[in-house]
Amino acid sequence: MSQKLGRASEKLAEPVYIRSSASVAGQKEGQGPFGALFDLVGEDDLFGCKTWEEAESTLQKDAVHLALGKAGVGPEEVDFLFAGDLLGQSIATSFGVSCYGIPLFGLYGACSTCGESLALASMALAGGFGERMVCVTSSHFASAEKEFRFPLGYGSQRPLSATWTVTGSGAFVLEKKKHEKSRAKITGFTVGSVVDYGLKDSMNMGACMAPAAASAIERHFQDFGVGPEEYDRIITGDLGTVGQTVLFELLREKGYDIAHKHMDCGIEIFDREKQDTHAGGSGCGCSAVTLSAYILKQLEEGVWRKVLFLPTGALLSKTSFNEGRSVPGIVHGLVIEAV
Amino acid sequence: MSQKLGRASEKLAEPVYIRSSASVAGQKEGQGPFGALFDLVGEDDLFGCKTWEEAESTLQKDAVHLALGKAGVGPEEVDFLFAGDLLGQSIATSFGVSCYGIPLFGLYGACSTCGESLALASMALAGGFGERMVCVTSSHFASAEKEFRFPLGYGSQRPLSATWTVTGSGAFVLEKKKHEKSRAKITGFTVGSVVDYGLKDSMNMGACMAPAAASAIERHFQDFGVGPEEYDRIITGDLGTVGQTVLFELLREKGYDIAHKHMDCGIEIFDREKQDTHAGGSGCGCSAVTLSAYILKQLEEGVWRKVLFLPTGALLSKTSFNEGRSVPGIVHGLVIEAV
Repeated sequence: MSQKLGRASEKLAEPVYIRSSASVAGQKEGQGPFGALFDLVGEDDLFGCKTWEEAESTLQKDAVHLALGKAGVGPEEVDFLFAGDLLGQSIATSFGVSCYGIPLFGLYGACSTCGESLALASMALAGGFGERMVCVTSSHFASAEKEFRFPLGYGSQRPLSATWTVTGSGAFVLEKKKHEKSRAKITGFTVGSVVDYGLKDSMNMGACMAPAAASAIERHFQDFGVGPEEYDRIITGDLGTVGQTVLFELLREKGYDIAHKHMDCGIEIFDREKQDTHAGGSGCGCSAVTLSAYILKQLEEGVWRKVLFLPTGALLSKTSFNEGRSVPGIVHGLVIEAV
Repeated sequence: MSQKLGRASEKLAEPVYIRSSASVAGQKEGQGPFGALFDLVGEDDLFGCKTWEEAESTLQKDAVHLALGKAGVGPEEVDFLFAGDLLGQSIATSFGVSCYGIPLFGLYGACSTCGESLALASMALAGGFGERMVCVTSSHFASAEKEFRFPLGYGSQRPLSATWTVTGSGAFVLEKKKHEKSRAKITGFTVGSVVDYGLKDSMNMGACMAPAAASAIERHFQDFGVGPEEYDRIITGDLGTVGQTVLFELLREKGYDIAHKHMDCGIEIFDREKQDTHAGGSGCGCSAVTLSAYILKQLEEGVWRKVLFLPTGALLSKTSFNEGRSVPGIVHGLVIEAV
């Protein structure tokens, strides 16, 4: 049940609770600012597997395992699983979650998929279709480079506008009922549509996604009748430093200044001075592990009361890129509050 | 609102209505048994575009346009769009539906995506999250061969167990309220999980998907407390002749004989004698265009009263295939009834 605010926005009459979550990250992410907060950090990025794709599947498998363990429930107690990743035909998901046997809705929204999964799971719970849902998304630096650019062995050069795909997976157990250990609650969401400004640079995905982020934020503000002051933080997924600049400019043109409230998971997850990741981190896993390890912690500890969480996605493939197509963006927003 | 029958199954307290639908198909499909029933058949499979991928996007764009037109509504009157295709990063969808500006949930369930989209849209409507949703899925023979096997120019040979990817897209306008022209109603669904029997032959996807189909059908029968006699037809998406044989055997082992009720969209969409498509048709578009053009027509005309519609998906990518991984399956079931 919900109150329809605008076509794209829903305010939940009864909130949905994030009962538990888990983050599994790669070696480089473990050396970054959030390193100590992740539940599990790999010793190397193969996670005991033979291929990068298998390694990414293992990330999802482990993240779901840990999140379920924290909630003290088994996979047979989950109604539906909402999951996705960046690889062609979402194989990290198919092979990562098959062992659980949970009824699955496979999703693709590029790096916005974490937001898409949380919105759909919230809708399923609030609509009365179950008691407990799990959301999981992942990305892996090496599988993503191979999928979208070149295999690592080619040693390709990266411009300063490029982002570094985060190796990581975040899983979330959502429940209809409040529990004494619920980490936070989801109270509403705004579903994004595809926004295409015609940009074609796959090495500057921040700029490609910024228009979609600006569109989602503006739509959210209008639908909910609020402004930046409503939130302790407005948190985008992986715009990076270049995308952030574009976002601020686009929103200023629309009359909104969010600079003092903005945080980008991609900018925060790596140490810019020491880790040589250029414009920041990116990927389906970037916003997911940051939400699990850092954002929910701030809400639990009372540092923040309410945030707008906006995973940002760049809709390209190597085929569309090589055929000269643009890189459209899509961004979904979730209102997440302290319990 | 719904009645939870088993973990994976929902019986809708209030049905959801398929207000209108449209099918757009390729030249070869137009020459098949359903040729005269499709709303639009391309003169050639490029549909006026320069690449196969653009052509597939055009299929989705046209299918949505036609379905909306039949319902007499504009894209601004649609709450959410649920869409997907088979290509890496679902680019047929991203570029196909962007012009409509409808809030989008991108999906990936291989050739089961039509079922996934109908289940999610039903849930969103029944849960009170809007009045009107659109579902669209597509596949294209040439873009799929390039994506999963070899570019057409290589002239690869096909074994008799191989299926022929359908060039087509089916779009469906779902509404909460019954309309005098509603084509059919969705009254329940069973969501599948990933089923992996370890089969590795991408040229025999019917056999790879049959275990998932058997699992979904058995689960559906158990959850709803029914058997094959409940339905006028039990309709799988694209098992083809080889997969059909495996499905019958697997279900007989479980005590169900569905042979007299079974229909497979892949088997019906081409003329086996004349069209040289081996085991049948396949793809995200196969079940979608068959549902729109043929199945809903049978329900409208009173030939059938109630069917179980089960789009079948094979979860592989060229990367996972080349790395020696298996081809798991996933199948979702929808209960569709005459209004």
